[in-house]
Amino acid sequence: MTVTFAKRMSFLQASEIREILKLTQKKEMISFAGGLPAAESFPVEEMKKIAVKVLDENGSDALQYSTTEGYEPLREKIAERMNRKFQTKVSANNILVTCGSQQALDFSGKLFLNEGDIVLCESPTYLAAISALKAYGPKFIAVPTDENGMIIEELERILAAQNKIKVIYVITDFQNPTGITWSLERRTAFMKLVNEYKIPVIEDNPYGELRFENQILPSLKSMDTEGLVIFTSTFSKTFCPGLRIGWIAAEPEMIEKYVLVKQGADLCTSIRSQMEISCFMDEYDFDLNVQKLVQLYRTRRNVMVDMLEKTLPKGVTFTRPQGGLFLWVELPKQMKALDLLQDCLKKHVAFIPGDSFFPNGGVENALRLNYSSMPEEKIREGIRRLSQAIKEYEKK
Amino acid sequence: MTVTFAKRMSFLQASEIREILKLTQKKEMISFAGGLPAAESFPVEEMKKIAVKVLDENGSDALQYSTTEGYEPLREKIAERMNRKFQTKVSANNILVTCGSQQALDFSGKLFLNEGDIVLCESPTYLAAISALKAYGPKFIAVPTDENGMIIEELERILAAQNKIKVIYVITDFQNPTGITWSLERRTAFMKLVNEYKIPVIEDNPYGELRFENQILPSLKSMDTEGLVIFTSTFSKTFCPGLRIGWIAAEPEMIEKYVLVKQGADLCTSIRSQMEISCFMDEYDFDLNVQKLVQLYRTRRNVMVDMLEKTLPKGVTFTRPQGGLFLWVELPKQMKALDLLQDCLKKHVAFIPGDSFFPNGGVENALRLNYSSMPEEKIREGIRRLSQAIKEYEKK
Repeated sequence: MTVTFAKRMSFLQASEIREILKLTQKKEMISFAGGLPAAESFPVEEMKKIAVKVLDENGSDALQYSTTEGYEPLREKIAERMNRKFQTKVSANNILVTCGSQQALDFSGKLFLNEGDIVLCESPTYLAAISALKAYGPKFIAVPTDENGMIIEELERILAAQNKIKVIYVITDFQNPTGITWSLERRTAFMKLVNEYKIPVIEDNPYGELRFENQILPSLKSMDTEGLVIFTSTFSKTFCPGLRIGWIAAEPEMIEKYVLVKQGADLCTSIRSQMEISCFMDEYDFDLNVQKLVQLYRTRRNVMVDMLEKTLPKGVTFTRPQGGLFLWVELPKQMKALDLLQDCLKKHVAFIPGDSFFPNGGVENALRLNYSSMPEEKIREGIRRLSQAIKEYEKK
Repeated sequence: MTVTFAKRMSFLQASEIREILKLTQKKEMISFAGGLPAAESFPVEEMKKIAVKVLDENGSDALQYSTTEGYEPLREKIAERMNRKFQTKVSANNILVTCGSQQALDFSGKLFLNEGDIVLCESPTYLAAISALKAYGPKFIAVPTDENGMIIEELERILAAQNKIKVIYVITDFQNPTGITWSLERRTAFMKLVNEYKIPVIEDNPYGELRFENQILPSLKSMDTEGLVIFTSTFSKTFCPGLRIGWIAAEPEMIEKYVLVKQGADLCTSIRSQMEISCFMDEYDFDLNVQKLVQLYRTRRNVMVDMLEKTLPKGVTFTRPQGGLFLWVELPKQMKALDLLQDCLKKHVAFIPGDSFFPNGGVENALRLNYSSMPEEKIREGIRRLSQAIKEYEKK
């Protein structure tokens, strides 16, 4: 085979993370690596009833092709829920249903990016957003970010200096990978700048409802006076990932463009899966389902934070997220997370080294831990082993 | 909003076809426009049992994220079935499960095409393949095609004259839109040329199993000695579209690249839907399901062909497909299918004007008719009205 692929394929490399995740499928592994929701939370029994009900009520319509925009009653429910949770003012016309929110990221790259365009993102940012957008050949500028979000002065400096900025990608609530949440002040200042420079913003918000304490802060979309914010989310974290249902909320003129992209990309999202989520929302208490997840993950976060405080050696710091699935550990400068991972894998503990979350690399002494998927005693044991591995590494 | 989109968005325009299809959703419309399989053929009752069984047997695993490549038992069954039906020699390693075969087309564009690259296709060809690939900015050359497939001498001339040909896209069985099937001789000669020029071929085969008479001819993939053929198909036409399950069959090194593309695009296909099709194949006779479809569509084709023969005025010709969902009508040169459509819509009959199936346009006197989705009496009445409209048009 001497086939030539598109230039973009040179940007897409098989990731080491993926190879690591393969290892973590072993039964004995305590994995803090993936971003899996707790499987024991999935409403399996309810889904059996829902699956039958949807087929009883809709018959073959549930198994046919459907409109690209998505199932109207679900789009209405998504809009209503967003308005209630994230203080937006959207309706079904603002919603395009997608195959998970990863598809929303791919579509955003396709819609906005020419090769060489600039994407601004937090530093660090979600690694699969980097790989989705990379396919369209942009340059990334990782805007310096602290525990309250992007640092506005730094953002302003970059906006003023660069003229090829096409999109800003941010995760304001319980960020992946750091777990941090943008303060209200940062959100307001950010939107002021964005409106001034007229740059589209992808507000990726898969975790926002999974808040363990205090109130949900207003979304960027709720402050969007210029139609620039594209809010994306998913049922993968509040319900289950296996149905592959996410969405984009944006201005109707923007949604029209996304619809064109989706038509070429996969015609439509499974109508049955959309009907099922809509039916579940009618038949059961979706808020209660989210509350149960919040309780479960809050406990797990508490256990992980507690164990990290008790066992980590001095000089290692970590974030204390108010929600979501992840926290972020910073090792002393001279330590390399990738080397530590090799040691940890021998102890059957896995995590993701932080470097992959920086689009331009260069930060080797950090790592991401997931606390949503492992039960408490495994979290305790896993953190014990991780801390032990760090101490051994320090003595090398 | 003064946002700048990517250059590729200028290639993607809202299609008139889509607007027409919206009209055809009215109850009174006799639509030969879409490509919908017969909804009454969907195994709704069986799917209720399967949905429960899959959740009983797999529990929360059926609702979790899964591997990008797809559900191993389904990949094995797809490979076994392809070998049996299309004379290939593939195994699970050759298969990537996709969200319908439309996704396979989008991924192929992403994998192979730089802006300005050339795609060869039949003349005419599938319109949604054009829109999937267009997003990557190629030029199309529609290779002259007759009732036996691409004309080999024409293909050879083009291959010899052009050096930017990246991919050849073909539908060898019951082509969309014409319904024609490539002869064995053309397949052999085509593969000889392809092997010589080392050009990857996308063999799009969604309809191959829906053969009304004679035997399925060997697929191009079965003659692929150089690993150049990417075979794509779907369960949308042999089972139901609502699960959104299709696949790519290619050499493992090629599949690896497609997996990278899929990771960025949507992570994975619904594991539950994959488990369900796999379970259906275990519990029921899939071949029998296909046979029922073949009987149904054969009858409908017969009715449509019979009515066209009886009612069309002289000078109008049409194809007689041996399978699949579509046939192709050619009007006298001076008639415009788009004008005829306007007349037909007033009579509550819809079809797709042929021009959209030519990537570079220019053929206004042809149209595509679908015979799979309407019951016999509606086909009779619809064709009667269509022929009437043609006769009225001629008198204008």
